[in-house]
Amino acid sequence: MQRREFLGTLAAVPFVPGLVRGQPRGAPRVNGARLNAQLAQFDAIGRTASGINRVAYADADLAGRRFTLDLFRAAGLAPVVDAAGNIVARVEGSSPGRPPIIIGSHVDSVTDGGNYDGPVGSFGAIEVARTLREQNLRLRHPLEVVVWQNEEGGTIGSKLAIGALTDDGLDRRARSGFTLREGLARIGGDPSRLAGVVRPPGSIAGYFELHIEQGGVLEQRGRQVGVVEGIVGLRWLEVTVTGTANHAGATPMDQRQDAVLAAAKFTVAVNDLVRAEPGRQVATVGRVVPSPNTTNIIAGSVLLTVDLRDLDATKLARLTAAFERAGAEVGRATGTTFAFVRTVDSDPAPATPAMMAHVEAAASALGCTTLTMPSGAGHDAQELARIGPMGMIFIPSVGGVSHSPKEYSRPEDITRGADVLLHAVLGLDRIAGR
Amino acid sequence: MQRREFLGTLAAVPFVPGLVRGQPRGAPRVNGARLNAQLAQFDAIGRTASGINRVAYADADLAGRRFTLDLFRAAGLAPVVDAAGNIVARVEGSSPGRPPIIIGSHVDSVTDGGNYDGPVGSFGAIEVARTLREQNLRLRHPLEVVVWQNEEGGTIGSKLAIGALTDDGLDRRARSGFTLREGLARIGGDPSRLAGVVRPPGSIAGYFELHIEQGGVLEQRGRQVGVVEGIVGLRWLEVTVTGTANHAGATPMDQRQDAVLAAAKFTVAVNDLVRAEPGRQVATVGRVVPSPNTTNIIAGSVLLTVDLRDLDATKLARLTAAFERAGAEVGRATGTTFAFVRTVDSDPAPATPAMMAHVEAAASALGCTTLTMPSGAGHDAQELARIGPMGMIFIPSVGGVSHSPKEYSRPEDITRGADVLLHAVLGLDRIAGR
Repeated sequence: MQRREFLGTLAAVPFVPGLVRGQPRGAPRVNGARLNAQLAQFDAIGRTASGINRVAYADADLAGRRFTLDLFRAAGLAPVVDAAGNIVARVEGSSPGRPPIIIGSHVDSVTDGGNYDGPVGSFGAIEVARTLREQNLRLRHPLEVVVWQNEEGGTIGSKLAIGALTDDGLDRRARSGFTLREGLARIGGDPSRLAGVVRPPGSIAGYFELHIEQGGVLEQRGRQVGVVEGIVGLRWLEVTVTGTANHAGATPMDQRQDAVLAAAKFTVAVNDLVRAEPGRQVATVGRVVPSPNTTNIIAGSVLLTVDLRDLDATKLARLTAAFERAGAEVGRATGTTFAFVRTVDSDPAPATPAMMAHVEAAASALGCTTLTMPSGAGHDAQELARIGPMGMIFIPSVGGVSHSPKEYSRPEDITRGADVLLHAVLGLDRIAGR
Repeated sequence: MQRREFLGTLAAVPFVPGLVRGQPRGAPRVNGARLNAQLAQFDAIGRTASGINRVAYADADLAGRRFTLDLFRAAGLAPVVDAAGNIVARVEGSSPGRPPIIIGSHVDSVTDGGNYDGPVGSFGAIEVARTLREQNLRLRHPLEVVVWQNEEGGTIGSKLAIGALTDDGLDRRARSGFTLREGLARIGGDPSRLAGVVRPPGSIAGYFELHIEQGGVLEQRGRQVGVVEGIVGLRWLEVTVTGTANHAGATPMDQRQDAVLAAAKFTVAVNDLVRAEPGRQVATVGRVVPSPNTTNIIAGSVLLTVDLRDLDATKLARLTAAFERAGAEVGRATGTTFAFVRTVDSDPAPATPAMMAHVEAAASALGCTTLTMPSGAGHDAQELARIGPMGMIFIPSVGGVSHSPKEYSRPEDITRGADVLLHAVLGLDRIAGR
């Protein structure tokens, strides 16, 4: 089918400032009703009494992927499952030899999660490709729509796609109970051909991902679209507090080495330290497991975790050191000892300024209010950022709730986000490689 | 067999001050080597890799009771298992119509406990009766040696013996998995005849119990014998902290209702409050169960427990109210709510001054250093205190450790404790009812 290239007014944004003041007649728009209907249908897959359960490789994830493959086909795309288990559909561009623009997200969920974290960006990307096709808008660059596998288990599919995870890392167990290797086989991947799907640095024109914010900042600030300035780096600390288990009645207050009390003082210190300096850094003690965890026994030990995130790697290092010092101080004051293990240590992934500008321009052209903001959650985009330009589009999460059955984003926000994705792609296609 | 009444020097202590300066020739002593050998043998029953496991009604408890019954018989006593499942042996006194002096303790253990909490006082009491018999020392009062069933599950046997627990309270499940009713049947009790074994107020001359301290106060203060001034009252609070579960990365610090942070602040407040006033009151947060208890999710709720103990009931009430106020304050400061449920509420059980004097006198006559102290742990003695005079004798716990496989008391301390029990009984027998 003959397609016309979209080189009109919107493609020039922000280079044609007139557009910022209104929406040009004939500017392409996604079919928001269709997109939201697809999401509503998808809500039935993996739905349980306690939320959406499409954890990677479980039967419900496989069902979700079959539904998604059908959506690709309905959109006129020809999806393949590559060796890494990612669903990929490529639409060739009009100008030969250019690297692809990639758009996509994921469809797996956490345990007891919601229907928006992942599917909004995945179905939004498919809808963008479908809109381009239906409106005979042919890009100069190839467009690849990708649904990455197992994002919630640690951006596995996108890590495989950039070579950050290889065959020898596939034996750890995913939340479904299957190893990554077994999971890969279940979804149609092939561990023996992983090298063939690795995208080297410089091989993409850019990657855009539409996603729900998962926090409440957009809603609180009354903005429609988040222009993501980067994905925060992450430090996970596993902290073991060791005291002495003893009788809760027979041990005087001044003779205790109470691990629960020490863990409590440390938790308060972590919160104080992270709030003591300006910035958007966050730290969370989310897991606390005392032992023996019994009403009438002073805890002999506590295992707790700290989740620390920020866009600035030096701040992560400084706060980690401060937490370790705080543990040592609390230990001295309570007769306990603190041992720290760093279990996860991921670098911040800044968005590419030019990609942020495309998102900002697209949103402005569509009359959306925007907010430049970090992503506190991890995304496949953080992996793609290692090999090329990256930009992300956030839409509001009602009540700031995510990873919960109460996760919800409004249909109009979802449509708006997909439109911004469409126009960001058009903007990049117009500019990139010139 | 003809027995001589022991009305000699020791019986008059502290009324014959000369004795305090030395040990009278011929003053009766228990056979400490025999007592400690029995305890060493008993250590094999219910011993597992993680400690002594003779939880009430489990097979190991039954084995422990069989061993104990054999000890009674070897001591020349005629034990019966009464309807409440308690092992009771009675030796009639020389003076008709007197109420009995009771001595005893328990032989059941906590999960993963030690060999001293209970058996020291039980075997010590049997040894005292055996010594009296072997030395032809006949008391004026009847002497009853009792091993109370299921002390660790809430002083069940002694509660049944004073009528504080009746048939309709027997359906709750013990740690062994059996209900109290099933357990009672397993150990030879009879729920249909419980009323027949209830001892009314005023029906005993006095109850003495020898026990390990379970704390480290005697050791720390370098004293050999604790003269217990009472068993502390106990308040257990179950506290539910409710916040909002949310994404640990995407939720700014100032938009959180973090139940773990709130629980930590409350735990610190409980500790500060209990230490802010003079006295020996203790409070412990021993159990903390966040939900969902995951590294990267801000906890939506936390269940925690407070264990508060003191000899003074008004202090218990005042501190409980202070904890509830602290929870409300922390809740306001953190956007969470605190709900309190009082799950256990037992009154302090003061020892009888005359019984304390008998223990003190016996210890002094034997040349032991003493310390007057509360019992922070619960004991069968707290139940017996409801119906008559009560006194307890503590011996040191090495390192203050109890309810643990590391629980240990030295043989010489055990022997000393049994000797003090013997002479306290002799002192009471001499004085009571005159």
